[in-house]
Amino acid sequence: MNIFEDGFSINIGNLLDLVVGVGLKILFLILAFAILAPIGRKIIVSTLHKATSKQKISESRVTTLEKLLLNIFSYTLIFLFIVMLFGIFDVPFGPLLASAGVVGLAIGFGAQGLVSDIVTGFFILLEKQIEVGDYVTTGGYSGIVEEVGLRTTQIRGFDGTLNFVPNRDVMGVSNHSRGNMRALVDIGISYDDNIDQAMQVLQTICEEFQTDARFIDGPDVLGVQAFGSSEIVLRVLGKTENMEQWGAERDMRKRIKEAFDANGIEIPFPHQVNITKNN
Amino acid sequence: MNIFEDGFSINIGNLLDLVVGVGLKILFLILAFAILAPIGRKIIVSTLHKATSKQKISESRVTTLEKLLLNIFSYTLIFLFIVMLFGIFDVPFGPLLASAGVVGLAIGFGAQGLVSDIVTGFFILLEKQIEVGDYVTTGGYSGIVEEVGLRTTQIRGFDGTLNFVPNRDVMGVSNHSRGNMRALVDIGISYDDNIDQAMQVLQTICEEFQTDARFIDGPDVLGVQAFGSSEIVLRVLGKTENMEQWGAERDMRKRIKEAFDANGIEIPFPHQVNITKNN
Amino acid sequence: MNIFEDGFSINIGNLLDLVVGVGLKILFLILAFAILAPIGRKIIVSTLHKATSKQKISESRVTTLEKLLLNIFSYTLIFLFIVMLFGIFDVPFGPLLASAGVVGLAIGFGAQGLVSDIVTGFFILLEKQIEVGDYVTTGGYSGIVEEVGLRTTQIRGFDGTLNFVPNRDVMGVSNHSRGNMRALVDIGISYDDNIDQAMQVLQTICEEFQTDARFIDGPDVLGVQAFGSSEIVLRVLGKTENMEQWGAERDMRKRIKEAFDANGIEIPFPHQVNITKNN
Amino acid sequence: MNIFEDGFSINIGNLLDLVVGVGLKILFLILAFAILAPIGRKIIVSTLHKATSKQKISESRVTTLEKLLLNIFSYTLIFLFIVMLFGIFDVPFGPLLASAGVVGLAIGFGAQGLVSDIVTGFFILLEKQIEVGDYVTTGGYSGIVEEVGLRTTQIRGFDGTLNFVPNRDVMGVSNHSRGNMRALVDIGISYDDNIDQAMQVLQTICEEFQTDARFIDGPDVLGVQAFGSSEIVLRVLGKTENMEQWGAERDMRKRIKEAFDANGIEIPFPHQVNITKNN
Amino acid sequence: MNIFEDGFSINIGNLLDLVVGVGLKILFLILAFAILAPIGRKIIVSTLHKATSKQKISESRVTTLEKLLLNIFSYTLIFLFIVMLFGIFDVPFGPLLASAGVVGLAIGFGAQGLVSDIVTGFFILLEKQIEVGDYVTTGGYSGIVEEVGLRTTQIRGFDGTLNFVPNRDVMGVSNHSRGNMRALVDIGISYDDNIDQAMQVLQTICEEFQTDARFIDGPDVLGVQAFGSSEIVLRVLGKTENMEQWGAERDMRKRIKEAFDANGIEIPFPHQVNITKNN
Amino acid sequence: MNIFEDGFSINIGNLLDLVVGVGLKILFLILAFAILAPIGRKIIVSTLHKATSKQKISESRVTTLEKLLLNIFSYTLIFLFIVMLFGIFDVPFGPLLASAGVVGLAIGFGAQGLVSDIVTGFFILLEKQIEVGDYVTTGGYSGIVEEVGLRTTQIRGFDGTLNFVPNRDVMGVSNHSRGNMRALVDIGISYDDNIDQAMQVLQTICEEFQTDARFIDGPDVLGVQAFGSSEIVLRVLGKTENMEQWGAERDMRKRIKEAFDANGIEIPFPHQVNITKNN
Amino acid sequence: MNIFEDGFSINIGNLLDLVVGVGLKILFLILAFAILAPIGRKIIVSTLHKATSKQKISESRVTTLEKLLLNIFSYTLIFLFIVMLFGIFDVPFGPLLASAGVVGLAIGFGAQGLVSDIVTGFFILLEKQIEVGDYVTTGGYSGIVEEVGLRTTQIRGFDGTLNFVPNRDVMGVSNHSRGNMRALVDIGISYDDNIDQAMQVLQTICEEFQTDARFIDGPDVLGVQAFGSSEIVLRVLGKTENMEQWGAERDMRKRIKEAFDANGIEIPFPHQVNITKNN
Repeated sequence: MNIFEDGFSINIGNLLDLVVGVGLKILFLILAFAILAPIGRKIIVSTLHKATSKQKISESRVTTLEKLLLNIFSYTLIFLFIVMLFGIFDVPFGPLLASAGVVGLAIGFGAQGLVSDIVTGFFILLEKQIEVGDYVTTGGYSGIVEEVGLRTTQIRGFDGTLNFVPNRDVMGVSNHSRGNMRALVDIGISYDDNIDQAMQVLQTICEEFQTDARFIDGPDVLGVQAFGSSEIVLRVLGKTENMEQWGAERDMRKRIKEAFDANGIEIPFPHQVNITKNN
Repeated sequence: MNIFEDGFSINIGNLLDLVVGVGLKILFLILAFAILAPIGRKIIVSTLHKATSKQKISESRVTTLEKLLLNIFSYTLIFLFIVMLFGIFDVPFGPLLASAGVVGLAIGFGAQGLVSDIVTGFFILLEKQIEVGDYVTTGGYSGIVEEVGLRTTQIRGFDGTLNFVPNRDVMGVSNHSRGNMRALVDIGISYDDNIDQAMQVLQTICEEFQTDARFIDGPDVLGVQAFGSSEIVLRVLGKTENMEQWGAERDMRKRIKEAFDANGIEIPFPHQVNITKNN
Repeated sequence: MNIFEDGFSINIGNLLDLVVGVGLKILFLILAFAILAPIGRKIIVSTLHKATSKQKISESRVTTLEKLLLNIFSYTLIFLFIVMLFGIFDVPFGPLLASAGVVGLAIGFGAQGLVSDIVTGFFILLEKQIEVGDYVTTGGYSGIVEEVGLRTTQIRGFDGTLNFVPNRDVMGVSNHSRGNMRALVDIGISYDDNIDQAMQVLQTICEEFQTDARFIDGPDVLGVQAFGSSEIVLRVLGKTENMEQWGAERDMRKRIKEAFDANGIEIPFPHQVNITKNN
Repeated sequence: MNIFEDGFSINIGNLLDLVVGVGLKILFLILAFAILAPIGRKIIVSTLHKATSKQKISESRVTTLEKLLLNIFSYTLIFLFIVMLFGIFDVPFGPLLASAGVVGLAIGFGAQGLVSDIVTGFFILLEKQIEVGDYVTTGGYSGIVEEVGLRTTQIRGFDGTLNFVPNRDVMGVSNHSRGNMRALVDIGISYDDNIDQAMQVLQTICEEFQTDARFIDGPDVLGVQAFGSSEIVLRVLGKTENMEQWGAERDMRKRIKEAFDANGIEIPFPHQVNITKNN
Repeated sequence: MNIFEDGFSINIGNLLDLVVGVGLKILFLILAFAILAPIGRKIIVSTLHKATSKQKISESRVTTLEKLLLNIFSYTLIFLFIVMLFGIFDVPFGPLLASAGVVGLAIGFGAQGLVSDIVTGFFILLEKQIEVGDYVTTGGYSGIVEEVGLRTTQIRGFDGTLNFVPNRDVMGVSNHSRGNMRALVDIGISYDDNIDQAMQVLQTICEEFQTDARFIDGPDVLGVQAFGSSEIVLRVLGKTENMEQWGAERDMRKRIKEAFDANGIEIPFPHQVNITKNN
Repeated sequence: MNIFEDGFSINIGNLLDLVVGVGLKILFLILAFAILAPIGRKIIVSTLHKATSKQKISESRVTTLEKLLLNIFSYTLIFLFIVMLFGIFDVPFGPLLASAGVVGLAIGFGAQGLVSDIVTGFFILLEKQIEVGDYVTTGGYSGIVEEVGLRTTQIRGFDGTLNFVPNRDVMGVSNHSRGNMRALVDIGISYDDNIDQAMQVLQTICEEFQTDARFIDGPDVLGVQAFGSSEIVLRVLGKTENMEQWGAERDMRKRIKEAFDANGIEIPFPHQVNITKNN
Repeated sequence: MNIFEDGFSINIGNLLDLVVGVGLKILFLILAFAILAPIGRKIIVSTLHKATSKQKISESRVTTLEKLLLNIFSYTLIFLFIVMLFGIFDVPFGPLLASAGVVGLAIGFGAQGLVSDIVTGFFILLEKQIEVGDYVTTGGYSGIVEEVGLRTTQIRGFDGTLNFVPNRDVMGVSNHSRGNMRALVDIGISYDDNIDQAMQVLQTICEEFQTDARFIDGPDVLGVQAFGSSEIVLRVLGKTENMEQWGAERDMRKRIKEAFDANGIEIPFPHQVNITKNN
């Protein structure tokens, strides 16, 4: 196994054999890599393009992913080439690798978070779960996305804070910028008020707002949502353009209060029945 | 172990032997794969069809699963073929693999989430736990399912948010679209009211609603559910068509309030007994 | 170690030796498997039957478990046979296995949930912890069991939701359908009322209910359970037929209220002592 | 390493050598096992008996543990014997084991819960932490123990539910059936009452109860436990026979209320000072 | 590598060589163990005594630890001896160990809790964190320690429950029996009272209690701890003998209430300002 | 494999061969390292500079990172060199490494936190998530960053506490010093007040503050944010210079109260409707 | 590989060769260790001194760390020496190590907590995060540090409890003894009071306290912190000497109450608007 162990005498033929053998092996190695490298690259590029073409991902994002994959591929090939070269020269590479294994494992455990970041980051980019400018909630953070990177995603909270979220924490993503949003107003009326009249008033307001450009669908009065301790809760529901839901809700609340005042419908304070007992 | 170590002289017979040996091995390899590949494919396809045929899974979904399994099978075979080919040419592949092992483990730890996603995704598709259009609660998200993929499930929340849920988080699935749903109304009456009369009024209303097409079963008055601090809680329960439970509950609440008003039954405010003590 | 390395010349005797050796090995292999397979099957079947016979598990369930175990056994034997066959032909199987190991580990980590599901599922079936139709609470879900599978258990919640619970989440099982259930009514009386009289009234009601077919044991008055902020809490306790506890409790509550009204015992509202101070 | 590689010609002497060598090895194997098996069994039985004899564990429980240990020991020996037999016949067992290792690990991760159950179950049985009939709290479940098994412990909750608790969840065990229990009554008196008088009245009651057979120690008045927002809290504490604590507490509460009524000591309602301000 | 592979003929000299070689090896083994065993024992005993002598650990506890360590050492040596003996006889021990490794790992994962218990138990004994009779809080349990074992610690809760705590759960230990304890009384006075006067009254009481044998340090009045919604909170703080803190606090509370009554200082009820508005 | 095993006689040629062989190997080793070392260093330095140049990271921070990377690289090379040297001299290094592996793994598990700290610390420095002087919230701690190290980050809480946060806990970072911050004032008005008038008053104040240098954007009145139980909540929102948000909010609150007083707009107390019932 | 396998006859030359070979190897081993040991020690000592000199760590603490590191280094060398010695004598050490590996792993998992304790303990000592006498909050415990050890840190809680915290739980450390501390008083004034006047009164008090030696910075009035339901909250903030913050806050509270009384500023009770409705 050792190139010198069976060599009782250094004769030139023997050396020649060795040189030729080693040379042939190196040749085979170089050939194998020269063939495999471009094929691998082609497969990566074409697979990526096929995967992204269906989802209309922007050209620059595809380039980022392509660069990442080709880099990983290149570094892997170089690493393999060096390892196998050493192997051909029969340098005792085994112990080195065994010892590297132990160190590698220790590092691997420590660095697994990093790998996890990049794997998740790759899929976030590929699946378009998050786009810059989206309003998302993920990993306990909420806000507008400022940057999606391979390791971290930056989310600007509404209070101005810039949150750096490691991609491994981006588990479930709630993306609030993918479609129309719900506008919902719950309004309590007195137990003494007439439910039909109140619903009539609300429906009139809803019809006003249905012509509002912000509303895609509704709003409409749903009915008696709950019996509160001091009020009957009526619910009004509609669908608005994305990010317009809060403004629409605010305007509806103001309008409802004014209409209720005009129609003598009470939004009741907490009620309590007092029974007086003398001591 | 080294094909050159015992070769003291390069003679043609020796080389021939080598070539023949290697050739035979490669032949055996190709033969083995040529036989195993189609058999493996057949087994996969037939097993899948047997498994899915019992559950009336749609043709397109079966195709997706079949494609996934055949892809995995093909890539595995190609990988094995290359590895064994290298082995035959006696290129020092051992160290390469050992070192790859360490790197592989580090990546494996990082990527285990990905594998977990796909394994769970496979079973979600196979077991029909989730269908597009179902109203489900899973992994902390609630809403209508928009897409079930191998890696992520997309759930549209009722407020319009699109939630991307990694399949590994889809542990227990609460599917709210698989059967009739419960309509339940808890209503408090005064401690001074007659329980029998109130239950009579409620039962009359229930009988009205029993003719409602939305109700499959009931509704019926169950009785005194609890003694509240200021009210006696009566419970009304029924079964409705799926997704009709909220509308039915809202209508019942409105109807009960009106009937109680008509019969002079009070839905009481919080009560308090005040004992006045002079300072 | 390589069958070709020591072969300086292809002579027929040598080849013959090889063929005979390989043939003998294959023969030994086939023999070993032919003997081990039926023995293993027998052991599995008889062990399972012994284990299940003590617990009166239904025939169909035993068949399911038997089929699972025999399948696992068969696939393992086939896998081992192929691996050892390759080994005999001296195809470089080592590297293949090493590399498979790394991939296998990555998958193993991802799929361990699946294995865990099946192992737990096996014991749920074997130990009869859950039967179809039982009312159970497990893994955060409550309801009637609709199906117990090897991978998932389906629990129908009382609101109509169908919950798919992976068996690995079925850790502790609270089975509410295994015996008589407790009916418990806590009732508050005024601090001014006579405790003895109230307990007397309650005991009379309890005696009425003791003749109720639903009650297995009791109900009985336990005594003063607690001093509330505004009431003295008395406790009534009994045992009912399974699933009858809620109906029994409801009827008892109604009866107690009526008896208390008849005897002038007050179920008190929250009390407060007001001390007026002038500003 | 291959028994055929150096065999240039099939001569009988060579074969004989082989047969003799293999025979000798098998003989050594059988001898080794024949000696080790009974010794191992003896050690297990005697160690177990020594360990259990100190703790007065019932004979049937010791038999269960003994059977488990001997079973594990036997299966291990049989497994080892087969593996080593294969090894002697020089069947390529290495790859088989390597591949089994990967599968084994995947299963091992999935099944580690099972092993954990049995290891914990073994110690629960051995250390008498839980006996059938004990009232315990463990793993989030409370109730009377109905069965202690190697894999699961069955606890009957007070509401009638039968809880199956995997032993791995039986971490800390709170055993409420191992000694006398505390009876504790906290009672609030008015800020206007005389503390000394109230404590005197309570002490008188305590002395009555000290003759109660249920009380082992006390009860006694401890003093002013806390200043509540509307009452001064006095504490009474005693030790009762196991499981008698609730009955004793109930009786003491009733007795205290009656004594306080007789002595004009008030158990106060929540107090509030009202300052009237005119708008 | 196989003792028979190079044996072309069974000649006596060859066998002799073998026997001598094996004999020499066994001799070396026995010698090595005979030398290492007593040295190892000496090192263990002396290291333990050095470690424990500084901490005045009781003789019986040191014996327990010594016995544990020597047992582990002996079993390890016996195990190693057997393994190496098998190795010398060249029985194919490798595959056995490899397969044992897989099983061992599975068990290892399951049993790691057990090892963790013993390792932690060892240090609890060695570092005197817990003594029998101490009042401790650990692993979510509180009470008086009844037994400290290598696997479990038994803690008797104040309500009489005996808690079995696996040592692995004994992470942080709060030992309440290691020094003087704090007696702290927070007392609210009216916003109308004079703070200086109230603090003066409290200080007088504190001076009374400073002569109390239970108090090591203080008590003293600290000042205005907080502005409550209806009262100004004053704090009194002192240090008492261990376990005397509750009694001291109770006596101080009683004394303060009496002194405040005597000085006309009010402990106020919750206050509320009422503004009447006519509907 | 053993350099002495084939040496039947110690002849000088043989030794020479050995010496030459070993010498050649050492030469190759030294050459390989002499070539790889500077190349590796170059790659590290240039890669780091490219990565940092885009982000304008301060020169001193780049030096820190460079030093860390070069240190790790050097130690790795030295370690590898020694291991391979041992390998060349054919000292039985295998067992040493195997045993080191076990110890290494145990340590690796224990030390993985340390590695995790450094990996995360490296990226915190590289990605400029945290700068000294930033106000951040991370790992449950909030405050001003005093030091960013490779293992720990020091955060000075606002109460003066110095928090040492291990970098592994620095998962998501909320950096409050990266841009303008939100100033938000929610203010409740009476249900009797005119919403339009109140919003007018608020808008006037907002316009005053818009000239305030601290405000970058706004403030503006958004509208009716919610219906409270006793008040209608109006929201005022603006953007201020970083860290000026609290001062700006405080000033706005004072100004709004004064303007409301001047305009007779009430900030209402909690309301309650009292219904008096005679006992 | 077996020193006897090629020995066809026991001839003296052969034995001599062996003896010489083994001797040479042992010599090389001893030489290698004799050179490496002192070099390693030197590197450890000098590295530690360099690391600690920058941080002014006390001499005794450096000695502790040095002793720990040198001990670990010595035991590792001794262990390696023995292992390699066994290797030279060609005792079948491989199986021993393999089997030890399995046991070692099981122990390693159990003992990883111990290693983690020591690694963290080492850095706590090295980085001076905790000093004896510091007031810290860590791992859920708060109090004064009494001892910092390699395995546990002892923290004396303010109630007198001695907490033993394993160093692995000492993750983030909040050290409250590293700098000046904040004194903060929030005080509510009536909605009817003049904010300017109240702030003026508070500022006057602040100026009094600014001459107090305990205050390093401030105190100062910040302004209107919040609109409470019944009061306007004003905030006063300052920096005090370490550990003086509580005393300073208490004195400021007393002074503010007296000044408010003198100036007729009210600290309001909870307010409520009552609307009377007749039944």
